[in-house]
Amino acid sequence: MADGLGAPLAAPLFERLALIGLGLIGASIARVAKRKRLVGHIVAADSSEEVRKRAAELGLADSIAKSAAAAVDGADLVILCVPVGAIGAVAEEIAPHLRKGAIVSDVGSVKSAVAAAFAKYLPAGVHALPAHPVAGTEQSGPEAGFATLFCNRWCILTPPDGADPKAVARLSEFWTAAGANVEIMSAAHHDLVLAITSHVPHLIAYNIVGTAADLETVTRSEVIKFSAGGFRDFTRIAASDPTMWRDVFLNNKEAVLEMLGRFSEDLTALQRMIRNGDAQGLFDLFTRTRAIRRGIIAEGQETAAPDFGRRTGEEQDRS
Amino acid sequence: MADGLGAPLAAPLFERLALIGLGLIGASIARVAKRKRLVGHIVAADSSEEVRKRAAELGLADSIAKSAAAAVDGADLVILCVPVGAIGAVAEEIAPHLRKGAIVSDVGSVKSAVAAAFAKYLPAGVHALPAHPVAGTEQSGPEAGFATLFCNRWCILTPPDGADPKAVARLSEFWTAAGANVEIMSAAHHDLVLAITSHVPHLIAYNIVGTAADLETVTRSEVIKFSAGGFRDFTRIAASDPTMWRDVFLNNKEAVLEMLGRFSEDLTALQRMIRNGDAQGLFDLFTRTRAIRRGIIAEGQETAAPDFGRRTGEEQDRS
Repeated sequence: MADGLGAPLAAPLFERLALIGLGLIGASIARVAKRKRLVGHIVAADSSEEVRKRAAELGLADSIAKSAAAAVDGADLVILCVPVGAIGAVAEEIAPHLRKGAIVSDVGSVKSAVAAAFAKYLPAGVHALPAHPVAGTEQSGPEAGFATLFCNRWCILTPPDGADPKAVARLSEFWTAAGANVEIMSAAHHDLVLAITSHVPHLIAYNIVGTAADLETVTRSEVIKFSAGGFRDFTRIAASDPTMWRDVFLNNKEAVLEMLGRFSEDLTALQRMIRNGDAQGLFDLFTRTRAIRRGIIAEGQETAAPDFGRRTGEEQDRS
Repeated sequence: MADGLGAPLAAPLFERLALIGLGLIGASIARVAKRKRLVGHIVAADSSEEVRKRAAELGLADSIAKSAAAAVDGADLVILCVPVGAIGAVAEEIAPHLRKGAIVSDVGSVKSAVAAAFAKYLPAGVHALPAHPVAGTEQSGPEAGFATLFCNRWCILTPPDGADPKAVARLSEFWTAAGANVEIMSAAHHDLVLAITSHVPHLIAYNIVGTAADLETVTRSEVIKFSAGGFRDFTRIAASDPTMWRDVFLNNKEAVLEMLGRFSEDLTALQRMIRNGDAQGLFDLFTRTRAIRRGIIAEGQETAAPDFGRRTGEEQDRS
């Protein structure tokens, strides 16, 4: 197929997939699972009646369950697509209803906290395998989901010590078939890596948008009007789902504070360079940072096309 | 025309445009001036022989001059498209060669420093009118320029006290015909507005990319691999021209340090919220920042399409 997802599978990888939560990620998993025939049956649940209704209208799943407990009944793959802060409560709710041998996974941006919640609530006899597809947009809700969201993105699995290698392989296969590349690491290392590549970037984006909104010397209308100079890109990041991000910061406190400490230390040094008029120091830093971007483009995680958040047709017309 | 630039003018606005510097902005002005027939003749100069050669190959100008002094000879509009730090030297060089009544302008991201350099070096009898088109991409050089760069972007003019209103009107007309919206404000206010909407965002983007590159606990390869979580967008901003940005920070020191102080103060408060587990405080901030983005989309400075720096065809295919 032209969209890079490839042909549907000849035989499904799981009999019955239960998706708990139908936001951007849950809806995208539903779409790719359906399109690629990754599973025999998709049953979805969401705590919001409105979301369940929209999911039914969109035809996201084969059936919609009224509760997470009902959804997991008989499922051999359960993926919790809820904010990290809700994982414990959902794990507790579904625990008595899980099929023996089922794989229970999630998509949260924090992994140590999820591993702890799984260890606390899930019964023996199921495979608790936390996972994190590193993909997303700044949009939320079931309509925001799309089948190719995970294409050429990384999905990080953080199996706990003693996890069944066969179960890990089956979950890897699921994500690979969904278009992702799979990487396995410890939950603790995951939380450190994501703190610098995702959590702190979101934090400082939220922060500068907040700073700009509160100035007395520059009006909000001016901030909006002249945002094309760079600020605009931060507002996109700072438009992400507030509940999800609140939970990320509450549940990855230590790694975020550690990386934020580094960031602030470096920013203080940079501030001093500006104050002292250290032309060479500034130039060296601004040159060095280009190498990382070249690496990202080379890895296919970004295109080289100039963007700055602009994508109307006319702007892409080069003459 | 489909690209939003409209038909060429019936009569040119200026006889002879001298462009000093053929980077992204200079080359884009050349392209739009040619396409829209904004001027009778375009003469361009660049201190780099290599750039002059590429500009000739690209057909950017009607003629290429070997020096800025030679280029301004007879020009009724001179636009300096050089880094802010080079403005003084160029102004000094061209001063004895300027035609009486010529408008001398620039495109720098800092305006007080340019106004001071113009006041110091330019002779009486020419119209010194600093300007700043708030547009760009992270790419540099003559090849990066394109005719529609300024479409639906703002160009800020900061005429000094006592500037000739007719000259201001003529320069406004030029930028309007190039596709931009024109706003007039004082140089000091410009520098404050841009400090928050452009300079500090670039500074923190450069800073976090530097922080990530220097970690011992997370490898550079991991930073690159898992950059889709938000970091990637910062690397685009941090790939901008090092010389240009060094000069911005050296020449807008006070406003940048003031805004950076605000940013750091707010970041400290946010850090404390995380440390204290202040769920409501985090949620409130993350919700409030969405309003600014809605304003930017409503103003046409950004589209609502989800992006996060991803633009391959397959990723845009929603099913």
